[in-house]
Amino acid sequence: MSRIYNFSAGPAILPEEVLKEAASEMLEYNGTGMSVMEMSHRSKAFEEIITDAEKTLRDLLKIPDNYKVLFLQGGASQQFAMIPMNLMKNRVADYINTGQWSKKAIAEGKLFGKVNVLTSSEDKTFSYIPDLQNLKISEDADYVYICHNNTIYGTKYNELPATGDKILVADMSSDILSEPVDVTKYGLIFAGVQKNIGPAGVVVVIIREDLITEDVLPGTPTMLKYKIHADNKSLYNTPPAYGIYICGKVFKWVQKLGGLEAMQKINQEKAAILYDYLDTSKLFRGTVVKKDRSLMNVPFVTGSDELDAKFIKEAKAAGFENLKGHRTVGGMRASIYNAMPIQGVKDLVEFMKKFEAENL
Amino acid sequence: MSRIYNFSAGPAILPEEVLKEAASEMLEYNGTGMSVMEMSHRSKAFEEIITDAEKTLRDLLKIPDNYKVLFLQGGASQQFAMIPMNLMKNRVADYINTGQWSKKAIAEGKLFGKVNVLTSSEDKTFSYIPDLQNLKISEDADYVYICHNNTIYGTKYNELPATGDKILVADMSSDILSEPVDVTKYGLIFAGVQKNIGPAGVVVVIIREDLITEDVLPGTPTMLKYKIHADNKSLYNTPPAYGIYICGKVFKWVQKLGGLEAMQKINQEKAAILYDYLDTSKLFRGTVVKKDRSLMNVPFVTGSDELDAKFIKEAKAAGFENLKGHRTVGGMRASIYNAMPIQGVKDLVEFMKKFEAENL
Repeated sequence: MSRIYNFSAGPAILPEEVLKEAASEMLEYNGTGMSVMEMSHRSKAFEEIITDAEKTLRDLLKIPDNYKVLFLQGGASQQFAMIPMNLMKNRVADYINTGQWSKKAIAEGKLFGKVNVLTSSEDKTFSYIPDLQNLKISEDADYVYICHNNTIYGTKYNELPATGDKILVADMSSDILSEPVDVTKYGLIFAGVQKNIGPAGVVVVIIREDLITEDVLPGTPTMLKYKIHADNKSLYNTPPAYGIYICGKVFKWVQKLGGLEAMQKINQEKAAILYDYLDTSKLFRGTVVKKDRSLMNVPFVTGSDELDAKFIKEAKAAGFENLKGHRTVGGMRASIYNAMPIQGVKDLVEFMKKFEAENL
Repeated sequence: MSRIYNFSAGPAILPEEVLKEAASEMLEYNGTGMSVMEMSHRSKAFEEIITDAEKTLRDLLKIPDNYKVLFLQGGASQQFAMIPMNLMKNRVADYINTGQWSKKAIAEGKLFGKVNVLTSSEDKTFSYIPDLQNLKISEDADYVYICHNNTIYGTKYNELPATGDKILVADMSSDILSEPVDVTKYGLIFAGVQKNIGPAGVVVVIIREDLITEDVLPGTPTMLKYKIHADNKSLYNTPPAYGIYICGKVFKWVQKLGGLEAMQKINQEKAAILYDYLDTSKLFRGTVVKKDRSLMNVPFVTGSDELDAKFIKEAKAAGFENLKGHRTVGGMRASIYNAMPIQGVKDLVEFMKKFEAENL
């Protein structure tokens, strides 16, 4: 058995050299005589690991000094509550609905205040990003919320809503580090790491300092206050230390590849191989309108449930794993995150061509 | 460089054979062609990992069928809020104060209702477990809360408070799996795994089914409801999958050693080596009253800050790591969790004897 091409939507493929390094350091990390898993989070060795991870992430995303970087637990789902609990001072927020994950964020926001859905693409199974012109941003909205890349549907914001002086909050779980980001356009960016960064169990939050206050909603648990984690540099309680260590290695790996400009070029090249084929194929077609296509998640269908099932089965047998689409979309989905080698996409397209020739 | 003896209070030493297995499976787990870190949490392979982990834990602790086992995030600190948010129906709870961690739980409980501190050992730096006779349990208390083993102070409950029909809730972060437990005496047991079970970032909750209800305090985030996690078998959102996988391996390791009766015997033997020496030493002495001594955390002092510092420095140089006591107690603390080999304790005592001879 060897490693297969893993097109999972998340948890997802990680860079092989990161895994190799982690394996070689499992029993003894860097002369400490212990595994990173066994290390006090107050130790000098771990302090270096987390400080370094933050520094590399700051370099990659060019995060300004007036933003804090937090490594937290609970995933994006917990952020759906932390965001209103910390930011909803007027108990009003605007959300754009582009799929299951924004719907979950909306439902959670409603536990804490008035939520306005500015616009939605639900009418066409979220296969596009809604028109962002002339949005009626609420006058008293505490923030405007978007899901920047929609894992299930394969859409992505290529421009941002004009939110004026309102704070823009973005879930970037499935496209963080896939391309450069102008962090200054956001008040808060968050990402569960298990797609483009590391193992599940860590969520990265990038938050503008002035949004970190003691003034949270009544009944907010201590662990759900950004201020506690910011004041304690993500070490208020024991952090998910091993996960953070792997994230740090992935940050370094992206840096070595040339940073986010280089990463974007690679991702565009990789995605183009698949999209160009989908646009010419007589059997397969993409499900997303062209201008809103994600570089990370590529859903496609044959139009026949039977053929879709046959394709997924044969692809699996040939070493292309996790190509089944989400049940709400059907068909197939290839998640081609940063760590997916270009050869994986080339091989997949070759396989699709062969399947097309045999089944058209 | 080789592995040293790591007496850290947590994150702490893990069984070497578990780390070796994890290293060997890092790139390809069990014929899946991928690392456990890269695996969809909805995959068959991961379902087997989490189901197996739960099953082994149930076997070890003889957890009755009417209790659920949950693998959550956020550590013990998040449980300090989840417990009142889910259980404090009358907004009243009783706590026993045996150290810093119960104090934190008490402070968090106060965010949600009336907290009565039944008794405390703060008068003597938490060096004992308070008298548990004639406790004035509140008539309308929703639960009684204890911290079963106090990591910082090295104390442990050897009997339980008589709570009558009140639910007993216990933080067992630092002694879970160190000895058999009668789970039926508790309504809820929780433990951050980073001391006796696995890598930081997972918390195990064992909760009686009738306590899992929709009836939580208003404003409780979805992720902080036990019911959501119980209904979804800890897979409501992406769990800390790699951590759970390591926990499963540690559970198997304990099982292979003979389960909790065998583990208890080993722990008693290990602790006795250290306590017996402390009781006869003319230089070192334990700080805890004998009947309340922990099997896991052994604080001791020389009586001189200077000598303490000298000991810690020389011990570190000799390969005994993380022996510095918590700043609130001073002196030294040897945490001798399940994974600390008996030889580690023997070698430590030999080293202490040598130090005593040289410095008395």
